[in-house]
Amino acid sequence: MSGYVRALAEQARAASAVLASVDGATRRRLIEAMAAQLDASSERVLAANAEDLRRGVEAKLSDAMLDRLKLDPARLGAIANALREVAAQADPLGEVTRREQRPNGLVIERQRVPLGLIAMIYEARPNVTADAAALCLKAGNAVLLRGGSEARASNAAIAACLHAALREHGLPEAAVSLIEDTAREHVLELLQLSDLIDLAIPRGGESLIRFVAEHARVPVIKHYKGVCHLYVDRAADAELALNLLVDGKASRPGVCNALETLLVHRDIAGTFVPRALATLAARGVEVRGCERTRSLAGAASAGIGAADEADYAAEYLDLIIAVRVVDDMEQALAHIARFGSDHTEVIATADAATAETFVRRTRSSAVMVNASSRFNDGGQLGLGAEIGISTTRLHAYGPMGVESLTIERFVVRGEGQVRHAESLTGRD
Amino acid sequence: MSGYVRALAEQARAASAVLASVDGATRRRLIEAMAAQLDASSERVLAANAEDLRRGVEAKLSDAMLDRLKLDPARLGAIANALREVAAQADPLGEVTRREQRPNGLVIERQRVPLGLIAMIYEARPNVTADAAALCLKAGNAVLLRGGSEARASNAAIAACLHAALREHGLPEAAVSLIEDTAREHVLELLQLSDLIDLAIPRGGESLIRFVAEHARVPVIKHYKGVCHLYVDRAADAELALNLLVDGKASRPGVCNALETLLVHRDIAGTFVPRALATLAARGVEVRGCERTRSLAGAASAGIGAADEADYAAEYLDLIIAVRVVDDMEQALAHIARFGSDHTEVIATADAATAETFVRRTRSSAVMVNASSRFNDGGQLGLGAEIGISTTRLHAYGPMGVESLTIERFVVRGEGQVRHAESLTGRD
Repeated sequence: MSGYVRALAEQARAASAVLASVDGATRRRLIEAMAAQLDASSERVLAANAEDLRRGVEAKLSDAMLDRLKLDPARLGAIANALREVAAQADPLGEVTRREQRPNGLVIERQRVPLGLIAMIYEARPNVTADAAALCLKAGNAVLLRGGSEARASNAAIAACLHAALREHGLPEAAVSLIEDTAREHVLELLQLSDLIDLAIPRGGESLIRFVAEHARVPVIKHYKGVCHLYVDRAADAELALNLLVDGKASRPGVCNALETLLVHRDIAGTFVPRALATLAARGVEVRGCERTRSLAGAASAGIGAADEADYAAEYLDLIIAVRVVDDMEQALAHIARFGSDHTEVIATADAATAETFVRRTRSSAVMVNASSRFNDGGQLGLGAEIGISTTRLHAYGPMGVESLTIERFVVRGEGQVRHAESLTGRD
Repeated sequence: MSGYVRALAEQARAASAVLASVDGATRRRLIEAMAAQLDASSERVLAANAEDLRRGVEAKLSDAMLDRLKLDPARLGAIANALREVAAQADPLGEVTRREQRPNGLVIERQRVPLGLIAMIYEARPNVTADAAALCLKAGNAVLLRGGSEARASNAAIAACLHAALREHGLPEAAVSLIEDTAREHVLELLQLSDLIDLAIPRGGESLIRFVAEHARVPVIKHYKGVCHLYVDRAADAELALNLLVDGKASRPGVCNALETLLVHRDIAGTFVPRALATLAARGVEVRGCERTRSLAGAASAGIGAADEADYAAEYLDLIIAVRVVDDMEQALAHIARFGSDHTEVIATADAATAETFVRRTRSSAVMVNASSRFNDGGQLGLGAEIGISTTRLHAYGPMGVESLTIERFVVRGEGQVRHAESLTGRD
């Protein structure tokens, strides 16, 4: 360990104590100033981004990767506007979530406080640099940012804007600390700093998440893959189910809340599966089907691959879907329990009791009844901006907004109360 | 890895899915039945405990350890009653904590669900076997218990009672799985099972917590040491502060919410410190003081050791206290930031503004204004029974009751809503 990240984290930790004491109005103005700095420095940021893109082309990055990396005036404007939306949210800090007076007169309050220092480990998207910083600061935290090497210049240019706003407000630049040297050994060092870092959030592909989970000595909330299912019940409205299927699979296949598997009750399969296959084919979606699915495909079955267990476990992030006919909802639930990733499950059914059973028997971060999987998103679910979608069943499960970057603690106010007024050497 | 713990954890994981579907009334009756089984089997449990005590005496365990290990009819009755109290608590599951209708008609609910499978790693106290099982089951979780080898027979006897109650209710015994072979390699195996265990809670001494934190691949909430401070402000009522001091240090020195350090504002030190030293001496408390404290002790200074940094960092768990005179509250806050363990801090002051600054500037799980540190306890703070006091600043911070063993997820109800009705291949 070089100590390079520890030195950065120590400064960020010190800054977190300052941030925790800054009032909500100042934190709002700070994030607005960050947006203004981004607007004012757009030429510099776009020039840095052009440099990253040039390197990316040389390094033969995929088109999808280059698209994620690319900024233009419209995208940069959207980043600044996202900061303004975060700034405008209600202050999550200091809120007293519960208050109770005990029989002995003590007043017990639960109060939201910042987590402290949050480390964000992410990949090519430079917008995360601004989004994550704004969300963390809004909740009174400092943040240590480690973006992907592909976006190095873009991230540094964006961080310079954020630092300018911190300076304007007399706040330490270290509240937003960017790890500019993106060597992987520094991520390893970061993950050991359990005395300094309160939470690490990895956001990215499977290999990044695995690396973090395997090496972390700091608390981690994973934003892991979404193997999301649509179960079409025997009592489903077929039109409604087809709409959920198309929106879930084809509207944006590369995101974690896209559908990866369609499960169809056998009683409705005879009519529904052929229509689903035709609809998917029309959208250019490749199908991997179970035996029954392929036999229902008739003449089209030649174009349908046989689904195996690897297909059921896959997060395709592409225009591919696995299709399986199930005997009943029990079999669908067993399939989800075995192959799901706790992200998002959908049921299409007109039967309210069936829907409630499905909700009760699935353990995913979001369960949708007659609604698209694509709604598992902080903005769509009313949280405002999100730092990601947690698939860790601890602290936050599902989209994480500003409130998820705080913790409740206890504040107790008394007038001298003690536990052992009578017997001061007693045992309890 | 022998696979011994994995096999147990797989069964417990399967049981957790059953438990999550059990209604609240059944979970309540189940825990009541566990209490009844403990009452009915008291002779067997006490005989097993006598065996543990015999081995403990042979192994020359300390008196304090033997006392923690020891059960008698009164203590066993208290364990059964604690189960009845847990049973009687409100059901934390299924509660809709928030509900909102979005402009597109979707109804978004936040709903409490169990965490899943919780691993509890603890030391000599056999009551934890019953307490932890009851709290986990109350919240619909399965639990994997790994108690200390000293309490092996007692834990097995208690677990047999819990299993009898599970059988009575037609529920899998594996919902409460005891790791009977207490070899440390099995703890190591447990800590790797990130595909099966949702949360590990270590509860015990510093070396156990460190071992768990260093080796865990599963999420951990630490119940770590309490280096708790009492800051006596210049505006403190001296009588009130002395009462907090005696209750905090002398009422039960071996617990984590006991005081370890007294910080005194220099403006009040001339009168307060001599009284505090006399009061502590009368209670048999050994003092390690700073220079100013020792000079204020006058003739008694010979009996006061010089406090060094190791004293300020120590969790004595004994009738010993460090005493330091500080120039002002800033110095007290800096001391707490440096040496504290995020557990409990207390201020004695009659000045409301000073109290609020102290609250805002400390980050511990509980801050007490004119109240004893000993109130940082689930029962005292109104949570009912607790599984421990979290010093991890994530998910739960401070005493953890039943509700802390659940997580909120999203349930979304619609009528076919999709995100991209117009442009089904759009990008968002």
